[in-house]
Amino acid sequence: MSEKVNVAIIGVGTVGGGACEVLCKNTDIIAIRSTKINIKAICDLDLVKARAVSDKSGLKDVIITKNWQDIVNDPEVDIVVETIGGTGVAKEIIVSAINNKKSVVSANKDLMARDGGELLALAAQNKVDLFFEASVAGGIPIIQAMKESLAGNDVKQIMGIVNGTTNYILTKMTETGADFNEALADAQRLGYAEADPTNDIEGYDAARKMAILASIAFNVRVRNDMVPVEGITKIDSWDIAYAKEFGYVMKMLGVATSDSDGVEVRVNPVMIPAEHPLASVKDSFNAVYVDSYPLGQAMFYGRGAGSLPTASAVVGDVINATRNITNNSRGRWGCTCALTKRMKTLEESISKYYLRVAVHDRSGVFASLTSALAKHNISLESVMQRRSIGDGEAVIVIVTHKVSHASMLLAAETVRALDTVLRIESLIRVED
Amino acid sequence: MSEKVNVAIIGVGTVGGGACEVLCKNTDIIAIRSTKINIKAICDLDLVKARAVSDKSGLKDVIITKNWQDIVNDPEVDIVVETIGGTGVAKEIIVSAINNKKSVVSANKDLMARDGGELLALAAQNKVDLFFEASVAGGIPIIQAMKESLAGNDVKQIMGIVNGTTNYILTKMTETGADFNEALADAQRLGYAEADPTNDIEGYDAARKMAILASIAFNVRVRNDMVPVEGITKIDSWDIAYAKEFGYVMKMLGVATSDSDGVEVRVNPVMIPAEHPLASVKDSFNAVYVDSYPLGQAMFYGRGAGSLPTASAVVGDVINATRNITNNSRGRWGCTCALTKRMKTLEESISKYYLRVAVHDRSGVFASLTSALAKHNISLESVMQRRSIGDGEAVIVIVTHKVSHASMLLAAETVRALDTVLRIESLIRVED
Repeated sequence: MSEKVNVAIIGVGTVGGGACEVLCKNTDIIAIRSTKINIKAICDLDLVKARAVSDKSGLKDVIITKNWQDIVNDPEVDIVVETIGGTGVAKEIIVSAINNKKSVVSANKDLMARDGGELLALAAQNKVDLFFEASVAGGIPIIQAMKESLAGNDVKQIMGIVNGTTNYILTKMTETGADFNEALADAQRLGYAEADPTNDIEGYDAARKMAILASIAFNVRVRNDMVPVEGITKIDSWDIAYAKEFGYVMKMLGVATSDSDGVEVRVNPVMIPAEHPLASVKDSFNAVYVDSYPLGQAMFYGRGAGSLPTASAVVGDVINATRNITNNSRGRWGCTCALTKRMKTLEESISKYYLRVAVHDRSGVFASLTSALAKHNISLESVMQRRSIGDGEAVIVIVTHKVSHASMLLAAETVRALDTVLRIESLIRVED
Repeated sequence: MSEKVNVAIIGVGTVGGGACEVLCKNTDIIAIRSTKINIKAICDLDLVKARAVSDKSGLKDVIITKNWQDIVNDPEVDIVVETIGGTGVAKEIIVSAINNKKSVVSANKDLMARDGGELLALAAQNKVDLFFEASVAGGIPIIQAMKESLAGNDVKQIMGIVNGTTNYILTKMTETGADFNEALADAQRLGYAEADPTNDIEGYDAARKMAILASIAFNVRVRNDMVPVEGITKIDSWDIAYAKEFGYVMKMLGVATSDSDGVEVRVNPVMIPAEHPLASVKDSFNAVYVDSYPLGQAMFYGRGAGSLPTASAVVGDVINATRNITNNSRGRWGCTCALTKRMKTLEESISKYYLRVAVHDRSGVFASLTSALAKHNISLESVMQRRSIGDGEAVIVIVTHKVSHASMLLAAETVRALDTVLRIESLIRVED
């Protein structure tokens, strides 16, 4: 293989700028492993930034433009890297590039989680590649692993720490006893959380990633709007402390499961056993845990965000696309969402639950609480001592055996209506 | 893609039998993801076993033979799976299959670690694939990850728990306080260790895997006989306990490093910080930790042995080879050991060291010990209290700052010669 492949990068912010830098800095190694990859053009609305990225990367003779049409219409460009994000212009760019027979590498989780099916079909129709490793878990090579190395596996479950912001916040709360707001402020100060952190802390970001992963794992098309989310804003330091006492660690997890009844995908805070491989994933690190036949338990761990780790995924995709160009094997793998499976409702999902209830500090309370749960056929795995919180109030903490979400919600209503009960303070899933 | 690809499996023991079972059980999913894969023939010296595997997998119309020549000479066989192991007949089979223009999937670490360069060159010459994911860390897809997803990365270091037997033994010693022989016996009872455990406990098995990984990571050809090994037989429960007190965990690690001075690959017991991602890899699990630019820290975790996990890797390779056949892109990636780098000697390698010394229980001992180390420019990071062990003996435990192995050995000689010193009980590397 000696051809030169031309790449153009559209959007040289954090991710695109990183990819440019890496393609230049590691150009010799990449040439040994595949082919010489040439950055032919850089496109950004901010030409000053584009020039700065080009200079920093030591590029010469690179075309710098603010018009993406210049890129997608350039017959010499083989691969278009879309790193502007969002679902508007980014989609126009990808569609135009594919229609012009260019392979595309994108880091765009919003777009792939919503329109992945449509775009992958278009790529297949045009016999080009559309790769998007960077859209899930940054530098962790989970998409290609699922598409290739694990392609012989029947995936039963994926659990992912796929949002670094919430993992940082929960780690901070666990390790320092900080409350949610303190940990969030800390994350914002360090640049791990945005000024408006909604997307991260409410689980929307993770939902997009889980939609993409579930689609690949189960061969069904899961869009992000099919993934119910529950944020971490209500988790308090008592929950974290009780989790520890029960031998659990609190994590914000994307959970995707497939069985003969259908597919379930959700994003929510859960308690997992302290010995679970995911429990030791700390700070802003990401990890994807896969349980499949025949592989069994496996986990992929690394940096889920940041310029350089994400650039690793983008450049890996560029190399993959390059190999397919030089081997004339574009479209070697594409969309595999050939199956239709029922999406389970959140109500059907089955978990253990952690239940923290504030009660009147008097006798008979515990009996009324447990018999209310028993009425809904919910049995208890463990119960924490009542803790008096003053003013005649006490707290009871329970971990139930497995129960459907629907039953748990009904039971919670019954519990709430007990005259011995003041309020339900927390209801959090437990996975093991 | 609708062609049918024919596979033949040579050797249906643990790994080959598992691969046969998985290709049959997951045949529909595999067809969705790539192409229908047909097992055309099974070869084993034990025809009864071959028949049993075939029946268990529900195969019909499969050719069963004890002559591998029947397989490699069958023009309808597209992919040969070599799962007999060893470096004798296995090599003949692979060479013949490749010369007959068949792609080959092998789980053979002994052969790939010794003759990988030669066999990959032959595959390239014949424009076929030779894949060997199962040769390293069982089901963990580390080879393809390094060859493809991480191909844009400049790898600085790989640290691998690539031998499940030794990880099981050290985990057992750490968790139960068992001594080495007890833990080994336990591993043998559970089938994690063989009757003759030499290959595992002395590090030879891990050396083969590290040779393969280092070759891929650094683009240089490293053979297993270039990898110095140190076993775990001398590790005792005191070392495990002291490690814990210093905040370390004892692991048997393959360590491969590349910098401007050259490449270093070794296998030995080391202490790593309890917070290191590898520290939480327990029992017979394997994990490969990669530090590279731009990705940074990443880790791949899963089952490193066993019929089904290893079959995952074999089947993944078969699918990969199948895609290359149906896309006419065989040889899409092959050997990339294009560079020549100096192999560093073990003496040059630099680590912190844990040093456990039995001394006379009297004053002035500590001063003589530290000044002996200072003479060799070795400074101390931490020192454990002297522990009296009776009969006028005491123990001093030290962790040094970084020092070359050569200096440490010289210093150890000096220490050993002190009249205050009875013996050096342990000298173990510390990595952080």
